[in-house]
Amino acid sequence: MKHELLFLGKIKDKFLTEGVEEYASRLRHYTSFYITLLKEKGRARGQQSAVDSEGMLLLQAIPTGALVVVLDPRGKQFSSEALSRQIDEWEMQGVKQVCYLIGGPDGHSSSVLQAADLLLSLSQMTFTHDMTRMLLVEQLYRAYTIKAGEKYHK
Amino acid sequence: MKHELLFLGKIKDKFLTEGVEEYASRLRHYTSFYITLLKEKGRARGQQSAVDSEGMLLLQAIPTGALVVVLDPRGKQFSSEALSRQIDEWEMQGVKQVCYLIGGPDGHSSSVLQAADLLLSLSQMTFTHDMTRMLLVEQLYRAYTIKAGEKYHK
Repeated sequence: MKHELLFLGKIKDKFLTEGVEEYASRLRHYTSFYITLLKEKGRARGQQSAVDSEGMLLLQAIPTGALVVVLDPRGKQFSSEALSRQIDEWEMQGVKQVCYLIGGPDGHSSSVLQAADLLLSLSQMTFTHDMTRMLLVEQLYRAYTIKAGEKYHK
Repeated sequence: MKHELLFLGKIKDKFLTEGVEEYASRLRHYTSFYITLLKEKGRARGQQSAVDSEGMLLLQAIPTGALVVVLDPRGKQFSSEALSRQIDEWEMQGVKQVCYLIGGPDGHSSSVLQAADLLLSLSQMTFTHDMTRMLLVEQLYRAYTIKAGEKYHK
């Protein structure tokens, strides 16, 4: 099963970029994993029209037939073990590709939320979208080590 | 109010060390923040006696009179806003120092759990203890920006 992470704008902090790269390279030992960086348009923070147009960019980038997971604080929380079982389940259902959408600082547009097959929340706490990227890749890597019965997840 | 983070063993990933340093330096613009690194003893992973002796090291390092927050996946989850309000509340109660205990890969001993004034969970997901360190410092920094009514938390 192929996993693709779609996000808007470059990561600002160097250590988070390094973290994403580190976990992505570990994850690729287990499965196909792609990151697609979409170009963020210049905009005033909090502007609704910008959230909508960013949403359009994300939606247009979803590969045909992919299962859509949208990262959102109001989403469902999983334990690492439950996320690992969810991936197993998708595989058994014949899902070929899962696409993860991480929004900008003002969150997702309603059309993105509606397009979600799953709304996933990493924590009740708010993280920056850059931090969310790194945590998601780390959790995908962890999910595959759990599937493989390996040590890292402890 | 002074915050002190107690943990065992050096951080293994360079990007997480950099992350901790980055958020710690931002947090120090708002409040006193100290990190105390305790020396991890060599041990076999999963050994109960090691968890207990690590627990003793942590407990001995708690400053007298400090409020004790133990990071544990079974603890209470807070939103970033709720953590910020909790810090306000501690300040109003006259708490002078809060001490945060992060355990090793096998978690905390029962004596550490019993010493906790608050068991705090960052997520239902399991993170490495190194990642937990970075996330906690980031959330403390975020809590202070929320208190100050600043932009970062969005």
